[in-house]
Amino acid sequence: MPTQQTAHADPTHVGNNMYQLMRELYPFCRSITGNGNRKTLEIIKQHIPLVVHEVPTGTQVFDWQVPKEWNITDAYIKNGKGERIVDFRKSNLHVLNYSMPVKKKVSLAELKQHVFAMPEHPDWIPYRTSYYKEQWAFCMTYNQLSQLTEQEYEVCVDSTLKDGHLTYGEYHIPGETPDRVLISSHICHPSICNDNLSGIVLNACLAKHLSRLSPRYSYTFLFVPGTIGPITWLARNETLAARIKHGLVAACVGDGGNFNYKRSRRGNDEIDRAVIHVLKHSGRDYQVWDYVPTGYDERQYCSPGFNLPVGCLMRTPNGMYPEYHSSADNLDLVRPEFLAESFSMYTAVLDVIEKNKIYVNQNPKCEPQLGKRGLYALVGGQGDRKLQETAVLWVLNLSDGEHSLLDIAEQSGLRFDVISEAADVLLQHDLLKEILG
Amino acid sequence: MPTQQTAHADPTHVGNNMYQLMRELYPFCRSITGNGNRKTLEIIKQHIPLVVHEVPTGTQVFDWQVPKEWNITDAYIKNGKGERIVDFRKSNLHVLNYSMPVKKKVSLAELKQHVFAMPEHPDWIPYRTSYYKEQWAFCMTYNQLSQLTEQEYEVCVDSTLKDGHLTYGEYHIPGETPDRVLISSHICHPSICNDNLSGIVLNACLAKHLSRLSPRYSYTFLFVPGTIGPITWLARNETLAARIKHGLVAACVGDGGNFNYKRSRRGNDEIDRAVIHVLKHSGRDYQVWDYVPTGYDERQYCSPGFNLPVGCLMRTPNGMYPEYHSSADNLDLVRPEFLAESFSMYTAVLDVIEKNKIYVNQNPKCEPQLGKRGLYALVGGQGDRKLQETAVLWVLNLSDGEHSLLDIAEQSGLRFDVISEAADVLLQHDLLKEILG
Amino acid sequence: MPTQQTAHADPTHVGNNMYQLMRELYPFCRSITGNGNRKTLEIIKQHIPLVVHEVPTGTQVFDWQVPKEWNITDAYIKNGKGERIVDFRKSNLHVLNYSMPVKKKVSLAELKQHVFAMPEHPDWIPYRTSYYKEQWAFCMTYNQLSQLTEQEYEVCVDSTLKDGHLTYGEYHIPGETPDRVLISSHICHPSICNDNLSGIVLNACLAKHLSRLSPRYSYTFLFVPGTIGPITWLARNETLAARIKHGLVAACVGDGGNFNYKRSRRGNDEIDRAVIHVLKHSGRDYQVWDYVPTGYDERQYCSPGFNLPVGCLMRTPNGMYPEYHSSADNLDLVRPEFLAESFSMYTAVLDVIEKNKIYVNQNPKCEPQLGKRGLYALVGGQGDRKLQETAVLWVLNLSDGEHSLLDIAEQSGLRFDVISEAADVLLQHDLLKEILG
Repeated sequence: MPTQQTAHADPTHVGNNMYQLMRELYPFCRSITGNGNRKTLEIIKQHIPLVVHEVPTGTQVFDWQVPKEWNITDAYIKNGKGERIVDFRKSNLHVLNYSMPVKKKVSLAELKQHVFAMPEHPDWIPYRTSYYKEQWAFCMTYNQLSQLTEQEYEVCVDSTLKDGHLTYGEYHIPGETPDRVLISSHICHPSICNDNLSGIVLNACLAKHLSRLSPRYSYTFLFVPGTIGPITWLARNETLAARIKHGLVAACVGDGGNFNYKRSRRGNDEIDRAVIHVLKHSGRDYQVWDYVPTGYDERQYCSPGFNLPVGCLMRTPNGMYPEYHSSADNLDLVRPEFLAESFSMYTAVLDVIEKNKIYVNQNPKCEPQLGKRGLYALVGGQGDRKLQETAVLWVLNLSDGEHSLLDIAEQSGLRFDVISEAADVLLQHDLLKEILG
Repeated sequence: MPTQQTAHADPTHVGNNMYQLMRELYPFCRSITGNGNRKTLEIIKQHIPLVVHEVPTGTQVFDWQVPKEWNITDAYIKNGKGERIVDFRKSNLHVLNYSMPVKKKVSLAELKQHVFAMPEHPDWIPYRTSYYKEQWAFCMTYNQLSQLTEQEYEVCVDSTLKDGHLTYGEYHIPGETPDRVLISSHICHPSICNDNLSGIVLNACLAKHLSRLSPRYSYTFLFVPGTIGPITWLARNETLAARIKHGLVAACVGDGGNFNYKRSRRGNDEIDRAVIHVLKHSGRDYQVWDYVPTGYDERQYCSPGFNLPVGCLMRTPNGMYPEYHSSADNLDLVRPEFLAESFSMYTAVLDVIEKNKIYVNQNPKCEPQLGKRGLYALVGGQGDRKLQETAVLWVLNLSDGEHSLLDIAEQSGLRFDVISEAADVLLQHDLLKEILG
Repeated sequence: MPTQQTAHADPTHVGNNMYQLMRELYPFCRSITGNGNRKTLEIIKQHIPLVVHEVPTGTQVFDWQVPKEWNITDAYIKNGKGERIVDFRKSNLHVLNYSMPVKKKVSLAELKQHVFAMPEHPDWIPYRTSYYKEQWAFCMTYNQLSQLTEQEYEVCVDSTLKDGHLTYGEYHIPGETPDRVLISSHICHPSICNDNLSGIVLNACLAKHLSRLSPRYSYTFLFVPGTIGPITWLARNETLAARIKHGLVAACVGDGGNFNYKRSRRGNDEIDRAVIHVLKHSGRDYQVWDYVPTGYDERQYCSPGFNLPVGCLMRTPNGMYPEYHSSADNLDLVRPEFLAESFSMYTAVLDVIEKNKIYVNQNPKCEPQLGKRGLYALVGGQGDRKLQETAVLWVLNLSDGEHSLLDIAEQSGLRFDVISEAADVLLQHDLLKEILG
């Protein structure tokens, strides 16, 4: 069982490790399929013994089919002089993700019909995708677009779109119970840091961290392309999915914004309460959002046929920071110390989940005599009372078989770890007994 | 089934029709019984095929008996010179409604014991009744009262109070289901416009409007004298009353004030939620009141032995505008455009009630692939999403057999009609199936 | 059954009686055992026929044992000149309550290790106890402590701590039903007025007051030392405890502060709602606190093995006034008029509890005709309605077998006594019938 001590590794060290891993993963051109994802998972495999799955194109997964595999080696726009004025080698965002191959001469007018740009941020390249409609296009800065003159251009996307596989990684840690905690991150974005290299590296570090402990719950760490990834995984793991008792989608955890938690569809399940408890006692501003059916892969986990208790703990949410889905979501936006804070937040949440048990007071009629057990001040009348003494009284009073430690923490207003330690002390004195919830 | 299109007739046209009908009905001296009510119902019958019921005096209706029938032809107070200084022919409010007949000479002192006036509004004649205590009296302006001098007066109320009938009108529209919607208006006030010629004409126009549609619910439109009217109707229609699933008392709907909704005794039944949803999205200020056992005929529908889900949707509530129960509640206070707005509000509420069904997502495990059905943007990553796309996701996510469309509208914060249209689209693609709630 | 009239005795008279009794009880050196408690109960016995119980030392009461009995006859500190510089005869607070006997010469340094003082209030003697750790000590003002010079002192505590008894008093009033109301006050504090002679005298006066009535509920009035007292009583009265339907711990009811109510562990039981209703309509500021497992003897009554609906109605709560647990909590802090207000508050609460029944409307379908029974204004249309008429309508509308009179008072916003009187009138007209809740 992870203890408060082991759960909190050195933040600077952890932050630097996460950032270093992110730097390694940054250059690959990820998508919902393809070699960029394979390379990403191979590198993660150097840290945790990930199992990498390859699911063939055309495999039926619920209402969907695994799409053709997309790979790309080069892409550019050349001007009349043969100069690469837009170059995939400079940024993989320059190509519409999943763009069809193309190589031809086009007029400025035709070219413009195949270009995305962001007039509101003229220096940034937007990130755009077209997974399910076959088309070719480029993304460029608005400044680049503005400077295009009337001439003939050569456009080239050296990509392939053919039968292959969808690739995802998973890592399981067995626990004392088959009940399971899921941490899921999407891996389909190319060179974009906060969305979602930050979630990927947090997920990997959490997995590594948990692998060193002997947790109560079993854990599943998923590295999947967005939407089609969790759909594929759920289709292949329905039985296992039914064991998921708590889950989080890890995304956008590397910027410096406040924490934001989007509740699971269930709204106030244990994972929701655990996250909100930790945020409340974090001393930081934070925001909690009700479930909505838009967002990340919680959309699939929380679809009505599964309705798993999976929330999403982010810093600045998707779409709410200007750099979102652009080349400005880069290695400067995400910082090691922000990643470290997110890691601490996640481990604190998992600590609550791990330790949140239901106990029954073994001396339920009146208070037990705490003084003779050394659990109570011996001079009375002074009016003040130590926090731990108060916590002991709360645990005794509410351990009636209907309140978990998290319930007691919430009702008392005390931190979960203070309540949890009080329960440990009472357990040592045989004043509590665990029951199965 | 009424659609949004058919439900919204041209407002100006509707408002003018309602106002015109109100002008026709204004002069009659209505009460809880009598010929004024018969004439009123006869005119309404020109618009909708009302069934007019006559219930004999003395008929036991629960704890009550149908009272004697009251009719009046003339009334006046003459001064010493024989001049009519108070004249029923000028305003039927001048006579205490249900006044006993009288014809005699009285001193000023005696006269004053039989006079009601409103010192706070010296130009207005108050409206007063005495249905269940036999007495005679006049109502006059405070100015009139102040000018009375010491002399002998002749008072005359040429009324009759004898065995007869209580008259009420009802109109039924059969629907797909025997479950029933009730719209009830009191018809017992004489020449008073907002309270409640406005409710009467709204009720009649709603009935005419619904008669042109093929509604899901059956409808009952009631035109009854206050208190004794619904008591009589309920006593004679207990079986039918048990089928009422939603109801509104229509009263005070012609002034220019904000809308006010008084909840049914059940507090948050479907009718309450439908009205509040429509008000919330109306872009207007409004107020919602908890149920209280004072007010209009919802008092009877919501008595504990019935406890029907009947609320009261008004503009300025009874007793909360200065002209209430006086001669100033007249054809100037009520305007066609206010009546038209009320009509729109009522039809919007009925539209919600009609379309509020429960569907089940036929592809509940993960999202269905909306793109291949043309229900989803094909270029991803742009961060904005069309309202209709969001609505489709909400309907899919919450159509688990436990959420009606109104539930989904409330939870999503979207307008009911947006949600309802999304459901229609999904039905067309066989992604939803209706279940009976 | 107590009526509103009998329930409210003359406040000045009641306040003076309570204050006089407090003066008599003030000098005794009470503790959790001993003769001070016996003398206290003897004096209360002059007012109500208290049964005094003596429970031998060593008796097992749940997890506790009845401690040795402590008695004290004298205590002092003498300076080198043989002068009593600290004298138990001047204030029994000077001795650590339950201090071991001692008689010896000590240096200043040693003496200081056995002294408690309050630097923040240099003129006050603190009140300190050591029930379960055997030690000797004195309490003195900080000024006294500061003036001690380097010399030899003689310390003497002429106390005994040996096998004996724990003494408590109880008084039962049988009611129509064996269901029981508990009022409990702790008697273990020596010469301290608000905490808790105020509670003791209020408890005694309430008992005397109730003894003159024929209440619906049975009543138990308890005068017990804190903590070990209710534990002993509960251990010896488990069957009777199970009949307790409502209870209050009476403490700190004599100062001039606002009322404070600490809810029972159940949170919103009938006693909680009754107290809060009375406070809400009192026209005074007040505060309501959620249950916490610290405080007075509600800690034992509300332990999870009992979970009795026992709250604590105080004025300024324990620990929240500066004089708390010091010699300044004396006959000046508590005043007759404050005691009288507390008495009125408690009797008003008991009045609600006594009269809070569930009735069923005998004419549930539509309103009964109130006019023919003289319960309704006979001239209609005036727009205002008497409070009692409104109350009658509320009682009729909500008397469906699911709402008690307190429910109706809360839902209507009317005072409980107005609702209760309306119910009485309706009972007289056979329009209501009591059912057992």
